[in-house]
Amino acid sequence: MSSVFFVVNQSVASRSWLTAPLNFTQSHALFRRAAAVIPGGIYGHTTPAATVPGAVPYFAAEGFGCRYRDVDGNTFIDFMGGYGPIVLGYHHPEVEAAADAARRLGAAFNHPTSLLVELAEALTARIDFADWAVFGKNGADLTTWSIMVAREVTGRPKILKIAGAYHGTQAWCTPGHGGLLPEDRAHIHEFAFNDVAALEALFARHPGAVAGLMLTPFHHPAYADSQLPTPEFVAAANRLCREHGALLILDDVRCGFRLSSDGSHTVYGYTPDLAVYCKALANGHPLSACVGRAVHQAAASRVFLTGSYWNDPAPMAAALSTLAIIERDKIPEKLASTGRHFVAGFLALGAKHGIPLVASGPPAMPYVRVADDPSFMRTQNLCAAAVAEGVFIHPHHNWFISAAMTDADIDEALQRLDRALATLAADLNSRA
Amino acid sequence: MSSVFFVVNQSVASRSWLTAPLNFTQSHALFRRAAAVIPGGIYGHTTPAATVPGAVPYFAAEGFGCRYRDVDGNTFIDFMGGYGPIVLGYHHPEVEAAADAARRLGAAFNHPTSLLVELAEALTARIDFADWAVFGKNGADLTTWSIMVAREVTGRPKILKIAGAYHGTQAWCTPGHGGLLPEDRAHIHEFAFNDVAALEALFARHPGAVAGLMLTPFHHPAYADSQLPTPEFVAAANRLCREHGALLILDDVRCGFRLSSDGSHTVYGYTPDLAVYCKALANGHPLSACVGRAVHQAAASRVFLTGSYWNDPAPMAAALSTLAIIERDKIPEKLASTGRHFVAGFLALGAKHGIPLVASGPPAMPYVRVADDPSFMRTQNLCAAAVAEGVFIHPHHNWFISAAMTDADIDEALQRLDRALATLAADLNSRA
Repeated sequence: MSSVFFVVNQSVASRSWLTAPLNFTQSHALFRRAAAVIPGGIYGHTTPAATVPGAVPYFAAEGFGCRYRDVDGNTFIDFMGGYGPIVLGYHHPEVEAAADAARRLGAAFNHPTSLLVELAEALTARIDFADWAVFGKNGADLTTWSIMVAREVTGRPKILKIAGAYHGTQAWCTPGHGGLLPEDRAHIHEFAFNDVAALEALFARHPGAVAGLMLTPFHHPAYADSQLPTPEFVAAANRLCREHGALLILDDVRCGFRLSSDGSHTVYGYTPDLAVYCKALANGHPLSACVGRAVHQAAASRVFLTGSYWNDPAPMAAALSTLAIIERDKIPEKLASTGRHFVAGFLALGAKHGIPLVASGPPAMPYVRVADDPSFMRTQNLCAAAVAEGVFIHPHHNWFISAAMTDADIDEALQRLDRALATLAADLNSRA
Repeated sequence: MSSVFFVVNQSVASRSWLTAPLNFTQSHALFRRAAAVIPGGIYGHTTPAATVPGAVPYFAAEGFGCRYRDVDGNTFIDFMGGYGPIVLGYHHPEVEAAADAARRLGAAFNHPTSLLVELAEALTARIDFADWAVFGKNGADLTTWSIMVAREVTGRPKILKIAGAYHGTQAWCTPGHGGLLPEDRAHIHEFAFNDVAALEALFARHPGAVAGLMLTPFHHPAYADSQLPTPEFVAAANRLCREHGALLILDDVRCGFRLSSDGSHTVYGYTPDLAVYCKALANGHPLSACVGRAVHQAAASRVFLTGSYWNDPAPMAAALSTLAIIERDKIPEKLASTGRHFVAGFLALGAKHGIPLVASGPPAMPYVRVADDPSFMRTQNLCAAAVAEGVFIHPHHNWFISAAMTDADIDEALQRLDRALATLAADLNSRA
């Protein structure tokens, strides 16, 4: 339990400079209960340890639009959206109505419902290269299945992936260190994003052995700036997969339907063989999808894939509604416009307070940090101060603009960030 | 497409002896659409190819209590319950009210809700050996995580499992054949269920190398009778894990909370270190759980585990409600009593019609087939005739009694099965 109390109490020690620290009494009480009955208290990507322990809420209570309330009654303008799924805002009335109508029919069935077919038809109609689709619950269900499909198609073992790219917590790709065997990654080889020579070298080193190249549309690592792909890298990826007979697999889990309404490959010019979607697919309802080309459909049918709840119609109804709204309301354009407004305003505020900020990533999924901050301590302090002012931003992970954000919401967020930057500047000056 | 039309059309050829074949026009039309845009048309465990192609519905429309309606308007008394999840009946009002109330708060959040803690506390209070819990979506999320935890705890690679036991579609355990590498199963070793000597030999062959023994409470393979564990096997499994310092992992995904309200290990006498629950946990809402002992909690916290939708409160609310109802209403006792009534009646009908039947498995999860039927053709014909009479039973997979089944439902099912057996007997006699 000692590590738990460290996490809970360090806020008092390290963030005492915050002018108006929030009350997290209920969050901390729940976390103490959690730590007794859950390994790590809170596990996975939403562990407080990955954000700013002690300075952020640990438990959510309710979401509405682009805001959420924590268990202590604090409310936040939310720039994470559940780490991506909530693209249209919490509890979007159209999406929820569609999901509710399907839910009233039942949950797990002995057979799929017609929504399975309608959703596969919707995705293949929308995504230019897609001739077929399958569905899972988690993104990792299908990133993992996709490498098996690539192996089945090619009869080869090797998968090339970007160093530091996240594709789930399966042994072949987890960023964790526990419970792994050397065999888990015997045929997984990594290269630096945008490094054409390194990618060429990997293909050359494993002639006739590469089944697939797993990419993300842009590189969105944790604890680092995002990187957009260079045209040279995209061209090389397309060319090398074609020349070597390897499948180009696009992990569009995080970006899909946020950067464009028809898959992120169209934004950057990739020609994928398989693509995996998840987060923005159903506005928070549990669903992922993998799409592919007709030439690989027979091989795909030979890689067994299932789960107990995969015939649940409610998330499929939510996805059909979400995809229709994304197209109808030009959501990617709106996210980009809102994101540009927000990032420009945020950078200007940094300059005003003498705290240079660095923005990276596309405007719909920005990441902003303090410049010259290799330890991320200043960025963490900025995020802590932002949370204290009612804006939830993350120090080590890209953010997600919500379609529920109006110009007024962004202006309010910027006003709050103005105060947060003032707090941080005063703290930095007091140490200088 | 040729394989698709084979599946759709063979019903006409092979089941023409059915006195009242059902209208599956909409099922078949949807399947033709599905086959164009989905590998295999319908993939996974609910593929028609695993049941009786042409003689069963392919698409569901609505569930209510222990019955469901297909897309052609045919209704069935359901002995599969979505292959297990629907333990209390479709759309149970209390469970759905709890899930709806949580759903209105939001879906994917930046943090868990208090329901995460409440559910972990409920499971650790209910399950005697459990000191902690984690949650996923699919059973396979956590059977796969559990072997990583066993490896992290022990620093050893080997997992022993029952030949023919299903633990999901991950590469280490899938019953499929596509996309696999030798490395995927380099440290997975199988033994025949209830074979104490074989299990002892595996431990002896890999001294100091076995991380975990993965068991199911009883053996419920597809395409075979179920087998209950012998007391000798249970004692040997407990003893060998203790002697060799290996973790006993119970895959209670299919049985959990159906055979007892506190985990199936108490029914048969296992002393697990880890247990995985899923199907009956939340009456169809997507949730799985793994529980373990305090001594392994730190190691478990080192095996990274997460998914995009794992902070969704609605399935956790559904699980709290489902677990409370299972205990309050003594559901396992009710399922066993209903199952005994059903199986005894079914076997008596078989004798009446001169078609000896073989029943296996616990009464709450029975499997009944035609005796002396190594090809399963007579069992398939029996299931086809049962479906034609409005009773959905499966020729190759154990069944699931529903708590929504009354004595009147069972009596009605038996009357329908009486007619199905008469049809089958007439067909067999006409060929004799």
